[in-house]
Amino acid sequence: MSVPISAGPVPPDLLVDLAAANRILVAQGVFDAAGHVSMRHPSARERFIMSRAMAPALVRSTDLIELDLDGVACAADGRQAFIERFIHAEIYKARPDVMAVAHSHSASVIPFGLTGVPLRAMYHNAAFLAAGVPVFDIREKFGTTSIVIDSPQKGAALAATLADKAAALLRAHGMVTVGPSLQAAVFRAVFTESSARIQQQAMAHGAAIAALEPEEGRLADAVNLATHGRAWDLWKQQAMAADSNI
Amino acid sequence: MSVPISAGPVPPDLLVDLAAANRILVAQGVFDAAGHVSMRHPSARERFIMSRAMAPALVRSTDLIELDLDGVACAADGRQAFIERFIHAEIYKARPDVMAVAHSHSASVIPFGLTGVPLRAMYHNAAFLAAGVPVFDIREKFGTTSIVIDSPQKGAALAATLADKAAALLRAHGMVTVGPSLQAAVFRAVFTESSARIQQQAMAHGAAIAALEPEEGRLADAVNLATHGRAWDLWKQQAMAADSNI
Amino acid sequence: MSVPISAGPVPPDLLVDLAAANRILVAQGVFDAAGHVSMRHPSARERFIMSRAMAPALVRSTDLIELDLDGVACAADGRQAFIERFIHAEIYKARPDVMAVAHSHSASVIPFGLTGVPLRAMYHNAAFLAAGVPVFDIREKFGTTSIVIDSPQKGAALAATLADKAAALLRAHGMVTVGPSLQAAVFRAVFTESSARIQQQAMAHGAAIAALEPEEGRLADAVNLATHGRAWDLWKQQAMAADSNI
Amino acid sequence: MSVPISAGPVPPDLLVDLAAANRILVAQGVFDAAGHVSMRHPSARERFIMSRAMAPALVRSTDLIELDLDGVACAADGRQAFIERFIHAEIYKARPDVMAVAHSHSASVIPFGLTGVPLRAMYHNAAFLAAGVPVFDIREKFGTTSIVIDSPQKGAALAATLADKAAALLRAHGMVTVGPSLQAAVFRAVFTESSARIQQQAMAHGAAIAALEPEEGRLADAVNLATHGRAWDLWKQQAMAADSNI
Repeated sequence: MSVPISAGPVPPDLLVDLAAANRILVAQGVFDAAGHVSMRHPSARERFIMSRAMAPALVRSTDLIELDLDGVACAADGRQAFIERFIHAEIYKARPDVMAVAHSHSASVIPFGLTGVPLRAMYHNAAFLAAGVPVFDIREKFGTTSIVIDSPQKGAALAATLADKAAALLRAHGMVTVGPSLQAAVFRAVFTESSARIQQQAMAHGAAIAALEPEEGRLADAVNLATHGRAWDLWKQQAMAADSNI
Repeated sequence: MSVPISAGPVPPDLLVDLAAANRILVAQGVFDAAGHVSMRHPSARERFIMSRAMAPALVRSTDLIELDLDGVACAADGRQAFIERFIHAEIYKARPDVMAVAHSHSASVIPFGLTGVPLRAMYHNAAFLAAGVPVFDIREKFGTTSIVIDSPQKGAALAATLADKAAALLRAHGMVTVGPSLQAAVFRAVFTESSARIQQQAMAHGAAIAALEPEEGRLADAVNLATHGRAWDLWKQQAMAADSNI
Repeated sequence: MSVPISAGPVPPDLLVDLAAANRILVAQGVFDAAGHVSMRHPSARERFIMSRAMAPALVRSTDLIELDLDGVACAADGRQAFIERFIHAEIYKARPDVMAVAHSHSASVIPFGLTGVPLRAMYHNAAFLAAGVPVFDIREKFGTTSIVIDSPQKGAALAATLADKAAALLRAHGMVTVGPSLQAAVFRAVFTESSARIQQQAMAHGAAIAALEPEEGRLADAVNLATHGRAWDLWKQQAMAADSNI
Repeated sequence: MSVPISAGPVPPDLLVDLAAANRILVAQGVFDAAGHVSMRHPSARERFIMSRAMAPALVRSTDLIELDLDGVACAADGRQAFIERFIHAEIYKARPDVMAVAHSHSASVIPFGLTGVPLRAMYHNAAFLAAGVPVFDIREKFGTTSIVIDSPQKGAALAATLADKAAALLRAHGMVTVGPSLQAAVFRAVFTESSARIQQQAMAHGAAIAALEPEEGRLADAVNLATHGRAWDLWKQQAMAADSNI
């Protein structure tokens, strides 16, 4: 496979945003020592940007790599890409509306991926969950594996499971969230984790849960998309305060 | 709607207290990137003070706006008010005894708003819950909405549900606490969240829960109102230590 | 009641230990904005030392007051004693073996005080719980109250419930732990809270819990009493690192 | 018992790694004020290195002691070894493949040791659990004890229970994890604790849990062993940032 030519430089402030997004998801308890978030190249729909294979807590602008939708890096300069870049590549391929993708091993969502109990929207912040959250079980198409999404085929199968939703769970692995902007994908990752934690508690009540209905979710998600900048501004400020040189 | 004339300046130390209250509720895990706390204007009962629309962790005195009880800002100087200012405005209208209101999306109370399991007072710190905690389900009066309290009518309906209580839950949304002082409303927000967390655990025992009885709650709340200054002093000192320029 | 004469000065390093103990219990999640820990006067069995009424996170040596076993302060110099000093006074009166007492509103133990599910020793660190943990319900002797232990009579009733044990729960209120040294009472407070948290989880398994048997508890507690200095040294070092001037 | 002669110095960077491993396990919530992690001597299979008896949060290179497989220290220079060094010694004796051992009182695993509910692999990070996690109940061979592994015999019994597995639970006490490298044993300790926390949640769903199957676990563990350096690098960097002089 030949190395693709770069689609051109990304504005530095967007690179800082993407580096910050990695650190924000650590600070918010969505990422641990692993996890990755990417954005579509702002001027080339067939390219996306994500960090080289490293702990998200440490990502700087200079760690970001441009890849094509086959998951091949342009000018990686010896920097190694994540094995699981195919999660991102195949979702960008299948979902023209998606501008950013986050993948994590968030603890609170794992149980739902293991038991098949449907994740629902516990509050307005997680409104996007009201449309449904599919579960990807790698065994269905690929049998016994290492769980890792290490090929375009596996990435494409995950993207097919995700379909038109904002979030999907990966059995015994984690989740993906997507959005029309980097800020939206980050916001959704944070509140998928939070809503799962709340649902776990609500289920223990042993009573019916008056979760957001799909139409309530659609309306509330529109408000979130218009207002999540406040959360982003806070989180980015906190990330920059912890390390101004990202 | 014409812009109301200011009822006059608020003493600077009270503004610092209100800015600190926002940060305290973040530090205590009641607010996340969202949430707002207000106080009635100390010399004008038809006015209240709350921050412009922003993350509560960042609020300073200079971010505080005076509003009237229709939720219209006096001299906002371009600073945008929260959509949900009607929660505050309508509670001040309906409840002459209330001098402060806090609204949050605290994780531990959400399950109770979703299942209808009554929140009770698990210990003396949460004594005010023993009088009962009503749940506001916006669907009852307004059908399918974005969940947001974005009109005087919705604020008034919430205030009617709150009635004479110290706290109310909002289905799939969060809670409000009120008090005869800013310090009381903050204290009650902290211990509503804490008591909910404890009740969740107690319910898992599968045995009767000997929560505070209403009269115990009344007696214990009186003690709290006389002594919560110790908690406030600590919390404010911690907020000022984190950022002395609020 | 006349003001008792001081039994004499306490060595400064012991006062620093007691101030540190307050801060350690905050750092370990046992105390919140409230809670108090005392020690018997090292050279006067009828006296004990505890802080004036204030948040434990802020206690310094200069905040410590000497009280007699009726809960009357010697030379408080205007510093106000805690209402609940009678918890301490009456336990020192009833239990000659006890050299220190801690009282907290620790969240994890409250459910057990509310439901009557017996607290057991989940691991060696909490070995002292294996002897049993009585629950004090203030209603039994005093009917409807504010829950506060605000008289010698209530303190004595709590001490009677504690009997010869190392810990007792107070319904809808919190716990007390005692020990043959300040370090032991602190260690026990930390691990009562921790063991309660673990028991909550173990109970959810729906299976028999192979907790420490009483004789295992006795043997393990002896080891703890001989080795808990390692935990104390760490905790005190951390408290002093946070504020060297206590 | 005569003092064994040292097998020779250990490269300083490996000593720093071992000191860092202690601090990492504190930072990751696996160790509290107690816990110890050891490594086999890099050039002498009959020796291992672990810290003197102290809180793991404070360990420096200079606190590390060389011991033989009977648990006897070479040149301890007055530094006291942990009573439970026999856990380490006997596992090194029984398991030639093991190069590092961690022992903790991690809160999330204790319930599983008490109830006998089998710990399973909730996600790829905990893949090594899919082979099974035996539980050591000291009562079976030794009757009523202090729970402490204070003799070669008890250590050997634990090693026999561990058999060829990567982790074992100790009833009412904690866990051990082992690995082919220090980094692997640390990684496994972190994710045993994490997976237990997740399993606790998944069990509450009351549905079948699609945990990793044994062969999935074998495949995923191989990936982990090849990639856990990313987590280690982050964790070590954080430990050194907190205290560069370890």
